[in-house]
Amino acid sequence: MCAIMFAMSKKGLSTNPYKGVRDFYPQQMAEQNYIFSVWKKIAELYGYEEYSASVLEPTELYKAKSGEEIINEQTYSFKDRGDREVTLRPEMTPTVARLVAGKRRELGFPLRWYSIPNLFRYEREQRGRLREHWQLNVDCFGATGIEIEAEIIEIADAVMKGFGGKSSDYRIKISHSAFLNNFISKKVADAELVSPLIKLIDRSSKIETDEYISRFKKIAPAWIGDPMEFVSISKVNESLAGLSEYRSIADLAELLLARGISVEISPLLTRGFDYYTGMIFEVYDTNPKNSRSLFGGGRYDNLLEIFGGERVPSVGFGMGDVTIRNFLEERNLFPGFKSTTDIYIGVIDSESLKAAYRFAKDLRSLGVRTSIDSSYRKGSDQKKSASKLAIPYFVLFGSDERDGGKCKVSDMNDGTSTFYDSAAAIAVALKKKKSRTL
Amino acid sequence: MCAIMFAMSKKGLSTNPYKGVRDFYPQQMAEQNYIFSVWKKIAELYGYEEYSASVLEPTELYKAKSGEEIINEQTYSFKDRGDREVTLRPEMTPTVARLVAGKRRELGFPLRWYSIPNLFRYEREQRGRLREHWQLNVDCFGATGIEIEAEIIEIADAVMKGFGGKSSDYRIKISHSAFLNNFISKKVADAELVSPLIKLIDRSSKIETDEYISRFKKIAPAWIGDPMEFVSISKVNESLAGLSEYRSIADLAELLLARGISVEISPLLTRGFDYYTGMIFEVYDTNPKNSRSLFGGGRYDNLLEIFGGERVPSVGFGMGDVTIRNFLEERNLFPGFKSTTDIYIGVIDSESLKAAYRFAKDLRSLGVRTSIDSSYRKGSDQKKSASKLAIPYFVLFGSDERDGGKCKVSDMNDGTSTFYDSAAAIAVALKKKKSRTL
Repeated sequence: MCAIMFAMSKKGLSTNPYKGVRDFYPQQMAEQNYIFSVWKKIAELYGYEEYSASVLEPTELYKAKSGEEIINEQTYSFKDRGDREVTLRPEMTPTVARLVAGKRRELGFPLRWYSIPNLFRYEREQRGRLREHWQLNVDCFGATGIEIEAEIIEIADAVMKGFGGKSSDYRIKISHSAFLNNFISKKVADAELVSPLIKLIDRSSKIETDEYISRFKKIAPAWIGDPMEFVSISKVNESLAGLSEYRSIADLAELLLARGISVEISPLLTRGFDYYTGMIFEVYDTNPKNSRSLFGGGRYDNLLEIFGGERVPSVGFGMGDVTIRNFLEERNLFPGFKSTTDIYIGVIDSESLKAAYRFAKDLRSLGVRTSIDSSYRKGSDQKKSASKLAIPYFVLFGSDERDGGKCKVSDMNDGTSTFYDSAAAIAVALKKKKSRTL
Repeated sequence: MCAIMFAMSKKGLSTNPYKGVRDFYPQQMAEQNYIFSVWKKIAELYGYEEYSASVLEPTELYKAKSGEEIINEQTYSFKDRGDREVTLRPEMTPTVARLVAGKRRELGFPLRWYSIPNLFRYEREQRGRLREHWQLNVDCFGATGIEIEAEIIEIADAVMKGFGGKSSDYRIKISHSAFLNNFISKKVADAELVSPLIKLIDRSSKIETDEYISRFKKIAPAWIGDPMEFVSISKVNESLAGLSEYRSIADLAELLLARGISVEISPLLTRGFDYYTGMIFEVYDTNPKNSRSLFGGGRYDNLLEIFGGERVPSVGFGMGDVTIRNFLEERNLFPGFKSTTDIYIGVIDSESLKAAYRFAKDLRSLGVRTSIDSSYRKGSDQKKSASKLAIPYFVLFGSDERDGGKCKVSDMNDGTSTFYDSAAAIAVALKKKKSRTL
């Protein structure tokens, strides 16, 4: 009995995270912080202000406007101990709409807001689709017209450039949420078929032609013509020429071009949510090995109506960390990993600790991020620890340094050493050396 | 029927967040970012590196070592669609223990780590106790002895100072997790009574004496002496004099004093979790109107054993945002709110937009965070928007500015105006003016 218990305790609890979510060890965290810092920097450069909310939301928030698939099969929803239905948010837009609607009278419009929330979806794991991801959300509330739509797309473009992406690394497709709707409505009489057909057309590039046709016939068994004409850009384009919506999308494309951003009008474009009411756009990776949608957004002028009160024109986009991380890795755009700690102080013996401690205190008071090792291991082992932690500078405190002698600081990258008089001299030198790293 | 539906839609969905969690509008977000930035700065100054993990954890992680009350009644636990038991983490320590145990062989010890996770507890709302809060966690793994314990307490102290707290605003109490245990074990023969008695003693300062005595008698009906001697510091102190643990706590207090941090040895101190194995400490607000524990931590050398493998000595603390927020508000320590946006460009008419847009682009390329208003409202209304958003500078683009004239920039704080030649001149001036704000 005792032996069995011992064996159990030897094996112990699993150290794996929950399925489909990630652990961020310091290196992954540095990468994540790098992604967040680029997002923050660009959003704020355009005058957008950060907001946030809890990941836990009342389930009813998602019943009104999200795509049906999401509420029914893909959310983490449960009842709390007080029998309230709650959901781990699968997207941020309903939440931000709730916040804006809640203080509509006090807030100054137009409102430029951004957030970096984590989002949960219950789905099978696959490349770029985890159960939890983080997403930059950039939205403007209270502005109509193409000027603000251009700004939103320009920010999306600036984020890609902020990560070191070149214009040739991605392309931006724009459309209008009414295009496909309009096209399909003209072709099929039954209004109830429009939404399932749009969803199918959205999937069409990801499934075989045979499957597309068989699914199409299931949705619209009475249809006599060729199902392929719904996914033919030329056919769709023909039918759009006269629409006023087409004019506004063309004007938007022109305005963006004048500002150095070229976009493609792509009438077959659809977005996974039902709330879009105008311009929609998506950014695609041009990598031939992995061509896919990176992120997108659009205009949703009616979403705030679910909270009552008047309409608030809204436009924005969401960009996930998992897809952008793949993009950066494929193109080798992540800056090299370096610890956030600047210097590691090794200590030879207990007599040297007091002086080393004072030295660390001086460095910290000058803003130098300093780690101190009080294990009294061999100097070479302490240096190895600094190296393993990717800390760029190392100094070993022994009798010389203790008695006020110069400090020998090793540069862990190039193996060179430099002698310094004081903590202040080190602080000045380190500030000069700081370069582009995580 | 139609009329009823209209009425329903007028009322609409509630804009309230889920009970016990918070929305962060830009001003609250700025406050939150201020708290996080102080936490980050101090933790990194001491060489601690950031890590993170998902809020969703396997429930079994909490079954092994947390206080029982927490697992049974206070967690958000549910089954996912694949019938796995999951929990929204109520504390970070089991998670960080999982991460360290998972890469024990690869990581270089001692490990200095910090994180700023959100935590969930299902409990009734009351001051300082919401259902979701954020918490700085600072931990060191792989180091024994009082030197690292002193470092952890010094960081806790440095965080309080980093927020502008004075030594007289708080006091630090330290103890050893074995003190009360040892004291009680000597008095009551039944080992099963020790843990419930410690929990009761922990609550004793928050409940009436009568209630304390009646609860005590329920737990230990056979006890003959005076229940009050368990909460009398002098009685407890007497019994500790000979313990080796007492010596190490006294040495720690002395070491901290030599470094300018005075702590109080307080043997009645307890912590809510069962995993502490040595030094424990708590920081108390000295505000006479609101004297309470702000945060605390301690040594937990055995926690990693639940994952199998050898022991890893560990020490750390957790500091919640809600209590620290109350502390800052009571002492008026929050810096004033200012938008993250530096300048708001108003635009008089569509002819001026192109020039204003180019100007905004120049400013952004120089790192000036710039918002541009394309509503063509009256200039005074656009200025009002800037003021409402707490953006510190405003410039209105009309025919003069469009034609390359000087730009009149209004300082929204003091009402003065200054003329500038170029975007570059504005960028230089703004950089000089940046002072301590959110």
